[in-house]
Amino acid sequence: MIQVGVVGASGYSGLELLKLLLSHPKVQVRKLFGNSSNGKMIEDVHPSLRRVFSKEIEEFSGSSLKNVDVLFLALPSGQAMSIVPEALAAGCKVIDLGGDFRLSDSSIYQKYYGHEHTAASFLTKAVYGLSEWNCEAIKNAQLVANPGCYPTSVHLALIPLLKASVLDSSPIGITSYSGTSGAGKSLTEKMMFTEVNESVRAYKVGSHQHTPEIRQYLETFGGADASFTFVPHLLPVTRGIYTTIHAVVKRGIGEAEIGRAFEASYAASPFVRVVAPAIPEMKDVLHTNFCDIGFVLDGEKLVILSTIDNLGKGAAGQAVQNMNLMFGLPQTEGLLPCYKKN
Amino acid sequence: MIQVGVVGASGYSGLELLKLLLSHPKVQVRKLFGNSSNGKMIEDVHPSLRRVFSKEIEEFSGSSLKNVDVLFLALPSGQAMSIVPEALAAGCKVIDLGGDFRLSDSSIYQKYYGHEHTAASFLTKAVYGLSEWNCEAIKNAQLVANPGCYPTSVHLALIPLLKASVLDSSPIGITSYSGTSGAGKSLTEKMMFTEVNESVRAYKVGSHQHTPEIRQYLETFGGADASFTFVPHLLPVTRGIYTTIHAVVKRGIGEAEIGRAFEASYAASPFVRVVAPAIPEMKDVLHTNFCDIGFVLDGEKLVILSTIDNLGKGAAGQAVQNMNLMFGLPQTEGLLPCYKKN
Amino acid sequence: MIQVGVVGASGYSGLELLKLLLSHPKVQVRKLFGNSSNGKMIEDVHPSLRRVFSKEIEEFSGSSLKNVDVLFLALPSGQAMSIVPEALAAGCKVIDLGGDFRLSDSSIYQKYYGHEHTAASFLTKAVYGLSEWNCEAIKNAQLVANPGCYPTSVHLALIPLLKASVLDSSPIGITSYSGTSGAGKSLTEKMMFTEVNESVRAYKVGSHQHTPEIRQYLETFGGADASFTFVPHLLPVTRGIYTTIHAVVKRGIGEAEIGRAFEASYAASPFVRVVAPAIPEMKDVLHTNFCDIGFVLDGEKLVILSTIDNLGKGAAGQAVQNMNLMFGLPQTEGLLPCYKKN
Amino acid sequence: MIQVGVVGASGYSGLELLKLLLSHPKVQVRKLFGNSSNGKMIEDVHPSLRRVFSKEIEEFSGSSLKNVDVLFLALPSGQAMSIVPEALAAGCKVIDLGGDFRLSDSSIYQKYYGHEHTAASFLTKAVYGLSEWNCEAIKNAQLVANPGCYPTSVHLALIPLLKASVLDSSPIGITSYSGTSGAGKSLTEKMMFTEVNESVRAYKVGSHQHTPEIRQYLETFGGADASFTFVPHLLPVTRGIYTTIHAVVKRGIGEAEIGRAFEASYAASPFVRVVAPAIPEMKDVLHTNFCDIGFVLDGEKLVILSTIDNLGKGAAGQAVQNMNLMFGLPQTEGLLPCYKKN
Repeated sequence: MIQVGVVGASGYSGLELLKLLLSHPKVQVRKLFGNSSNGKMIEDVHPSLRRVFSKEIEEFSGSSLKNVDVLFLALPSGQAMSIVPEALAAGCKVIDLGGDFRLSDSSIYQKYYGHEHTAASFLTKAVYGLSEWNCEAIKNAQLVANPGCYPTSVHLALIPLLKASVLDSSPIGITSYSGTSGAGKSLTEKMMFTEVNESVRAYKVGSHQHTPEIRQYLETFGGADASFTFVPHLLPVTRGIYTTIHAVVKRGIGEAEIGRAFEASYAASPFVRVVAPAIPEMKDVLHTNFCDIGFVLDGEKLVILSTIDNLGKGAAGQAVQNMNLMFGLPQTEGLLPCYKKN
Repeated sequence: MIQVGVVGASGYSGLELLKLLLSHPKVQVRKLFGNSSNGKMIEDVHPSLRRVFSKEIEEFSGSSLKNVDVLFLALPSGQAMSIVPEALAAGCKVIDLGGDFRLSDSSIYQKYYGHEHTAASFLTKAVYGLSEWNCEAIKNAQLVANPGCYPTSVHLALIPLLKASVLDSSPIGITSYSGTSGAGKSLTEKMMFTEVNESVRAYKVGSHQHTPEIRQYLETFGGADASFTFVPHLLPVTRGIYTTIHAVVKRGIGEAEIGRAFEASYAASPFVRVVAPAIPEMKDVLHTNFCDIGFVLDGEKLVILSTIDNLGKGAAGQAVQNMNLMFGLPQTEGLLPCYKKN
Repeated sequence: MIQVGVVGASGYSGLELLKLLLSHPKVQVRKLFGNSSNGKMIEDVHPSLRRVFSKEIEEFSGSSLKNVDVLFLALPSGQAMSIVPEALAAGCKVIDLGGDFRLSDSSIYQKYYGHEHTAASFLTKAVYGLSEWNCEAIKNAQLVANPGCYPTSVHLALIPLLKASVLDSSPIGITSYSGTSGAGKSLTEKMMFTEVNESVRAYKVGSHQHTPEIRQYLETFGGADASFTFVPHLLPVTRGIYTTIHAVVKRGIGEAEIGRAFEASYAASPFVRVVAPAIPEMKDVLHTNFCDIGFVLDGEKLVILSTIDNLGKGAAGQAVQNMNLMFGLPQTEGLLPCYKKN
Repeated sequence: MIQVGVVGASGYSGLELLKLLLSHPKVQVRKLFGNSSNGKMIEDVHPSLRRVFSKEIEEFSGSSLKNVDVLFLALPSGQAMSIVPEALAAGCKVIDLGGDFRLSDSSIYQKYYGHEHTAASFLTKAVYGLSEWNCEAIKNAQLVANPGCYPTSVHLALIPLLKASVLDSSPIGITSYSGTSGAGKSLTEKMMFTEVNESVRAYKVGSHQHTPEIRQYLETFGGADASFTFVPHLLPVTRGIYTTIHAVVKRGIGEAEIGRAFEASYAASPFVRVVAPAIPEMKDVLHTNFCDIGFVLDGEKLVILSTIDNLGKGAAGQAVQNMNLMFGLPQTEGLLPCYKKN
């Protein structure tokens, strides 16, 4: 049994993570740490957990970690950086679902997140947890920076094409739509039901904090310094991300080459389903760890469609997938029914 | 391993059932039977199942059942009655998620369902699958008539109070709201997104086919011929039922007696959570087999609130719970994480 | 032209009111008063008004009212009471969309609203603005207390039956569902999109501040001290209220008597549509000032269904209807197209 | 008074049109024509019209048009072509809200709409009703082809930039999201509430029938043969379109030039609001005839955001705007409150 601690279980990603961990056959949830909810029982914070799981939320301290093998952090940006050093010192592995350790350059962090990075020396220790593309490093990591939800949907769609050098140098247009749970629980007028329902809006066009994360790892794993614009939108649904990408292929590239690029990348990946020529639907990936990818080529103009559950593959699901890798388990453990039996 | 067959896996209840069965540790899904979808692969009918489960949908015949221990039927009303006799003859246990075998009187069936019952002799053989109230009979049943979604939310709320004789003889007012998946996949203008979204409407007031089912089993398990009106409404959500009941208690009955009635009924039930004095929220039971119940007493006027997932405790979840009972497994097997380990 | 001022135009009811007033042929919007939005332009607060209407929001003072014939207040509870005395002293008529002047007893106000009433002497001066039942008093009123949204849907459904003495003395069960705009713009976790969407919950069961308002005016206009329970619920839609009422009729009362009671009450009312035997749908009244009412009688058990737009007949629409009455205009002015021309 | 007839008033666009026409001060709705609803009263087809408007739906015939000045057609594609010749022969002006007369080339029509064009000789007589860009021709038109909803959102965003020659020759990526009312009332599983809710999907990528319409009029009004990909998506809302466009500007072009291009195009247009640097929100244009446009320039990468109500500026609103032009009325008549009075 892997002994697990969770910091930030009172949020949406935290709850999703907790549910996955509770149903994971090799995990025991040992410790819950919080902030404003310290001293409360987790089933009082999340009534959906009544009669499922009961545990008190404690104040975090490194000394509480002695029986914890891995600590998950599901916190607003800027909070993980004060916990990670202590947790690593206590001998835990750490998987951070937030943005604190994803960017290698602390000045870019400060520019996009709006506050200073106070644990910059740990940035080089962090391993980016894009499971399909960084598997070997994740297996040996002490600190995994779990990818952002938008970047996951973008990276899984674009890295195979960059690696295969099938795109020309035209700027790539990335349009993403996300459900509201991605914004967490902070109270803002813009996230009230009456404001979001029956509406759509783009936000942080060109300035979203996931932009530099997309850029850094397209280069790391795609091997190319791609020019792109990322436009996130808010969608009146609770969960799910749908990303539509406009790109241009090199002269002579056809559907076969595109298909082969995806095939070469994901033939052995249990959680990426290339569904082309079908078009992905968001509802097919909700409450799963799948990313469904489709594409349509019109002459040299390529459209790639990618959808994930922002709380699943975009957060808690991928975090569990990474834990599986870090502890030598099959990637799918706890994330898929044991369908082999059927 | 329990060898399972499913008839009607292409519908919403069928899909939910299939997902529960696939993740059930003691079940092997052996056979899928359909109708218009015969010959197709189940993962083509439900793309969410790609890379999760693959099996061809066959035409039903009794001779295909030889290795099947239990057959689930998830069919529109009127279709199960032509399959059940053959399945029972083949030696299978049967769990019917539809309405064909819930009412003991075939003339009432005809009145409310609008067509004749062609297997009326099996009505007396069927055991009503309200797990919390008919446990012993279910354990020995060959044919279980799984309860309707609305009746489940009503029965679990009212039977304890009728049994405890705390209500006076005033008519009981039952107002239920349901998500759209309860209506299945049949194409009608009334179920189009543009018609349902941002709206509410009552329907079949006093004439819904679940009315006689509510009446029969309030009497069977509550021991009282309660007078009530049942008013179902359509809600612009996909899943979930929320039932609000107005009743009047006998003089002298207080909150303590109400609480004791529920406690006596459900203290040992893993799936009924009496949350009073809290108010139940629908989102806390979605994607679970729980029924959450609350109540508020104002003088002699009692309000009872009950919520379930219509596809969970209201259909597929309760069907799996009944299967567990029929095969000597813990009720919670496959329906709760093995939280004892935590 | 009626010269109009609006206090609180930055909220949802305020915006709805402003839109109705702008398209009203006999109204000129002269003054906007606010609070936190003072000094801003209204079209910056509500971008939907860009190129439709432009005016600065001022700080309220009685001296600004000299050219104002009628002042509308669309404020959170407790704020109107500090403005009304000054406005009346300045010679304005006042229509208050909030709850400050609806109850005649200041101690009941304090109990349900949670704060003291600081202008209790004005309670007797206020005329309750239920247009269909208090028409003559409204015509001569200086201060109109515009009804609450829930009470409007309840009163219009029940008063005709109480007046006609067709109900027996059994407690009446009132179940109402409301869209989120009824809760206004205050930031609470419970009103965030992620909390409301795909869910339902009852709230303030038996203790909602509209309960005493329902009680007082059922008695005033229905002439009966009815026993009832009022259970409000939150619905995942932006606008609309749907109220389902369970009652019991006296022995011998049939559909004809019920129908006559409604006919006698509303035959001449332009905004109440008794649609029985059809069932009302919420979408048919959205963005209108209509209340649609249906009923179904099952023996002696009567179900009444009533639906309004909480921002329309439940707030801004009825406020404009009352203004029309106060200024000698046809009730429908600005609220219906001039359909006589067709 | 303009005497108006409407064919197809039982659909969503038809209902929206009817509501606009009823509240238009210079219009009398004289005739309603239908198909399956012939012989019914319009208020029985649309209960929202009870007590607002009453008229029988007749079978269409040219001889019924003698007192009709203008006939609106709100029909599924392929049906207008059998009515337009007769209506024009009867001396009516015609405004067709469908796609039958938008494309000048009947072979392209057949390719994208899937059936032959049987009135191809009228294609050259039709005037494309993009009010802001074809005003003079519309004023003198007998037959107006009212633009599609998606094309309206695209054209208003791109034509100013093409005309001003600020874009380079890179392919333009157009991503549009639409509410469900755009799909009309035809029954398909894909449009059922349970399928659409809490989901998103792209559809007809590169093959949507609005693609050639976008192409033809970008060229006509923008003066450039732009290369683009159009990707429509279905959104779980009833109304509204949100279009996000990725383009690349020529070297040296800055925000000022972009702003000037929009200013030059729309300074005098009452219904196009260029809101940059703000980001448009869909809810600000719902139930209006506005198109809100924003843009963000990041180096040479330009994002343009455009939103309309698909039933407003995308259908019925623009149709009324065109009628106003055709009959010498101010464009805004019946579409804006007479705000000058304020």
